[in-house]
Amino acid sequence: MAEHLKGIAASDGVAVAKAYLLVQPDLSFNKKTGADVEKEKSRLDEALTKSQDELEKIKAHAEESIGVEEAQVFEAHIMILGDPDFIGAIKQEIEDKKENAEAALSDISNNFIATFEAMQDNDYMKERAADIRDVTKRVMSHLLGVTLPNPSLINEEVVILAKDLAPSDTAQLNRKYVKAFVTDVGGRTAHSAIMARSLEIPAVVGTDRATSLAQSAGDVKIAVNGVTGDVIIDPTAAEIAQFEKAGKDFIQQKEEWAKLKDESTITADGKHFTLAANIGTPKDLQGVLANGAEAIGLYRTEFLYMDSSELPTEDAQFEAYREVLEGMNGKQVVVRTMDIGGDKHLPYLPLPEEENPFLGYRAIRISLDRQEIFRTQLRALIRASYYGKLGIMFPMIATVNEFKKAKAIFQEEFDQLKASGTPVSDDIEVGMMVEIPASAVLADKFAKVADFFSIGTNDLIQYTMAADRGNDRVSYLYQPYNPAILRLVKNVIDSAHKEGKWVGMCGEAAGDPIMDCILLGMGLDEYSMSATSVLKIRSLMKRIDTSKVVELAEKAITESVTNEDNIQLVKKYIDLD
Amino acid sequence: MAEHLKGIAASDGVAVAKAYLLVQPDLSFNKKTGADVEKEKSRLDEALTKSQDELEKIKAHAEESIGVEEAQVFEAHIMILGDPDFIGAIKQEIEDKKENAEAALSDISNNFIATFEAMQDNDYMKERAADIRDVTKRVMSHLLGVTLPNPSLINEEVVILAKDLAPSDTAQLNRKYVKAFVTDVGGRTAHSAIMARSLEIPAVVGTDRATSLAQSAGDVKIAVNGVTGDVIIDPTAAEIAQFEKAGKDFIQQKEEWAKLKDESTITADGKHFTLAANIGTPKDLQGVLANGAEAIGLYRTEFLYMDSSELPTEDAQFEAYREVLEGMNGKQVVVRTMDIGGDKHLPYLPLPEEENPFLGYRAIRISLDRQEIFRTQLRALIRASYYGKLGIMFPMIATVNEFKKAKAIFQEEFDQLKASGTPVSDDIEVGMMVEIPASAVLADKFAKVADFFSIGTNDLIQYTMAADRGNDRVSYLYQPYNPAILRLVKNVIDSAHKEGKWVGMCGEAAGDPIMDCILLGMGLDEYSMSATSVLKIRSLMKRIDTSKVVELAEKAITESVTNEDNIQLVKKYIDLD
Repeated sequence: MAEHLKGIAASDGVAVAKAYLLVQPDLSFNKKTGADVEKEKSRLDEALTKSQDELEKIKAHAEESIGVEEAQVFEAHIMILGDPDFIGAIKQEIEDKKENAEAALSDISNNFIATFEAMQDNDYMKERAADIRDVTKRVMSHLLGVTLPNPSLINEEVVILAKDLAPSDTAQLNRKYVKAFVTDVGGRTAHSAIMARSLEIPAVVGTDRATSLAQSAGDVKIAVNGVTGDVIIDPTAAEIAQFEKAGKDFIQQKEEWAKLKDESTITADGKHFTLAANIGTPKDLQGVLANGAEAIGLYRTEFLYMDSSELPTEDAQFEAYREVLEGMNGKQVVVRTMDIGGDKHLPYLPLPEEENPFLGYRAIRISLDRQEIFRTQLRALIRASYYGKLGIMFPMIATVNEFKKAKAIFQEEFDQLKASGTPVSDDIEVGMMVEIPASAVLADKFAKVADFFSIGTNDLIQYTMAADRGNDRVSYLYQPYNPAILRLVKNVIDSAHKEGKWVGMCGEAAGDPIMDCILLGMGLDEYSMSATSVLKIRSLMKRIDTSKVVELAEKAITESVTNEDNIQLVKKYIDLD
Repeated sequence: MAEHLKGIAASDGVAVAKAYLLVQPDLSFNKKTGADVEKEKSRLDEALTKSQDELEKIKAHAEESIGVEEAQVFEAHIMILGDPDFIGAIKQEIEDKKENAEAALSDISNNFIATFEAMQDNDYMKERAADIRDVTKRVMSHLLGVTLPNPSLINEEVVILAKDLAPSDTAQLNRKYVKAFVTDVGGRTAHSAIMARSLEIPAVVGTDRATSLAQSAGDVKIAVNGVTGDVIIDPTAAEIAQFEKAGKDFIQQKEEWAKLKDESTITADGKHFTLAANIGTPKDLQGVLANGAEAIGLYRTEFLYMDSSELPTEDAQFEAYREVLEGMNGKQVVVRTMDIGGDKHLPYLPLPEEENPFLGYRAIRISLDRQEIFRTQLRALIRASYYGKLGIMFPMIATVNEFKKAKAIFQEEFDQLKASGTPVSDDIEVGMMVEIPASAVLADKFAKVADFFSIGTNDLIQYTMAADRGNDRVSYLYQPYNPAILRLVKNVIDSAHKEGKWVGMCGEAAGDPIMDCILLGMGLDEYSMSATSVLKIRSLMKRIDTSKVVELAEKAITESVTNEDNIQLVKKYIDLD
């Protein structure tokens, strides 16, 4: 029977395909003693062989799709399957205790893991513990005759269903076959949602029950509408037709929007605003150009650090920055310096364990402390500046002193490079993210020292509401239209304009139609979003008369009391459908 | 040789006494095989006996000083020492592997811990794992012939030196013998600092190197000045004399202040402000009255929940609240409803593990979700209201809707109790904490629905600066005088006054002389602090002409750019020495 679910529309598009459940199976077992020793040992051998075959396949596939280096983890897993210490101990345990293979595997594996984990300060040993845990799961699945999900082996069109998708899961997905995905948890700003938009895969998140319903439904189709948030498990033929129609309409609308690609963004009353795109790597450039973005408002440089096994060299960074600057052909590229810490960690740069990493040692706080890393990045950026129109911004600035320190370091490196005769641009803009409430409140003082502001809504909302954006229990507090947030945004815009500086927004909210109606009324200069949202928002802005939304924006911060008030208010002013 | 250190003055007073290092000794050992089995078993037995003797002493002492129930953890430890499974397995390991006792103890203990911890959803088993870890440490210390610190057994005058003090450590300290304490880490708002002020023990925190210097110095005296933050390790006779003089001066000044006990707080130009105290339990009432506080501005009810092995009943809560209300004899008592979560957990109320607990499920967010707990507390409060002048405030309010929901639940319980004929007060004030930036920004809207505001500076600073106040790496961002913080505070005060409501501050900053000069200028109505600070601040306020500090406060939010700017600004206006 068709089950209807409503989730959060996280990435546009419509799809109907077979369900693929990316869910860990139940690996619990009954411990038996007095088992037939030889039989258990041969059961173990069989499970080891099957595991090895499977891992070889996954490894081969991973080498092709994600790269040889990244696939080496699977080689490590295969070696564990042949490790005489480990396998020998399991067989010994079967002999000594006459246990079934499941119990012996579990006991010995736990011992090994405990031993490795007890070596507290040794990251290598901790990784070994994680490897043994993974391998044990795989061998156990074969002993129990259940199947572990292997998303990298998917070879037909599917809709992925999962409780949540980790970045490592999404990295394994093959875009050719994965038509959509649906998760139980998460919001529009979850990693999986951002990834879906960047891959242009339709996605609905936060459905709560999708995996459990699909699990009971068995081998069925799933219909997903990433525009409306509708999901149907086991849809009827009529429903499939209806979704396919919606899919066609969506493609048609996209074709309409595509005509705006080479236009600039002009409102109904003739005002120009800049629609920019957020990118993570030079690879994203293609999408930026294909969607007609007028600038790059946020180049997240974390990926340079995260996709590497050591600190990226100055030259490696220089090449990446130059590629993007040249590719944009004179349009501005705003690069955010390293935003590591929080939920982003580097294996080769151990950070202290923190109780509250989002309130901890991250971003500019690390850069000012570990200046050798910061200076390398700045030099790479300054060298690249010659090849385009560069803006640099510092993340997580809380105090004017932090900005001044970061700017002074930039200036030192700039002066040195210039003096050495390196070709550099003389009009690099140096600005900052406004994502901490303190800097939004004190924007008038910051506007005297920064060349521009870029408002990071995800963090600004998180701190202003004191609610972790990754925590489902407090997700009701992720309120971009809350008048408190909008007042801070307005203060930032007004303060900047008073000093003749420009203001952008590079959080997820910048690509949100409701928010954009209010932001246009406040006079925000630049809107930086997923490249795939640019044309949709351009189409919206062409319809808006800014003189009307000025009043709307004023009411949003003076009359409204709640987030919901402002949704209603915008809907009264603008027909968003 | 005398070593001079400067730390953060965390609790007033001066002391000179012997150093007591509360530092974990090195418990590493060499694994030996081919050991003499009988000798190792008897070494183990000897260590077990010594551990038992020691635990009996600690238990007896704990029963006296902290209570029979709290001392039961030591009984559990003694039982582990006699557990045949555990001890038997260690001896078997010595026999089987011919290991030394240290290695066998460590291996078996790790196995037990791993097994218990693997039972993931079982809190009882997790506690057992912690117990085994503690007991193993103690037995290991006797095997190695090193001494574990046992602060509860201190029986001479000492200055405690520690990296940091956990609440459980401070609970064991005997005030009679502990003359001061000095920690390597922490700031004025760390638990240990707050505890020191409440126990009136001089303290200096954040000295960085005190324990390592004291460790190399050996058996020496330590001189501590909790007013200035000075610490001397192994002071000269002249320095001891100088500190003793400072101690006498401090006591003399306290005697001067004591004369103000029954006066009300009137500034030089005749304006009255309320100096209130923060308390945690009815036991603190004595200090409140002894120090002449004019109200209780914050009664933290968490202790009722934390000092208990199950949810406190309505009657138990009622008794506690009534005792405080009656004890204050008509002066207002503002009770904050349960602020659990964040860094405060209840063993009997399991909360989800969170990545960023300070941005998570805590305080009013739990109360609105688990209404049965909230309603019980509200009924106890409403019943107690009859016995004094009660204010109730909700912690961690982020949105007007949350306040309205909480207030509606209060109203339901109030109406029901009143209708049932229970004697209740008709003028309970229902207000809220302002500690989340969103509520400070939107204070005008909140002022229409709340009877009063109490600004919680610790959290407000933490969220506004996006810096965990317990995290040393970002402690430089704990900036109470940062103009961004002061602007928010000013907005809260002005918004409340416009609606005829009063505003208090109950964070640590309320007892800080620099802050109070600015707050007087902003017109803050009530200052709630550690009871021991009340007389000092009363003495300060008597000297201040508020007409002068109005200008100061205005400059602090318009002209100043940094925290440091405002410290200098206040010092220009007021002589604080």
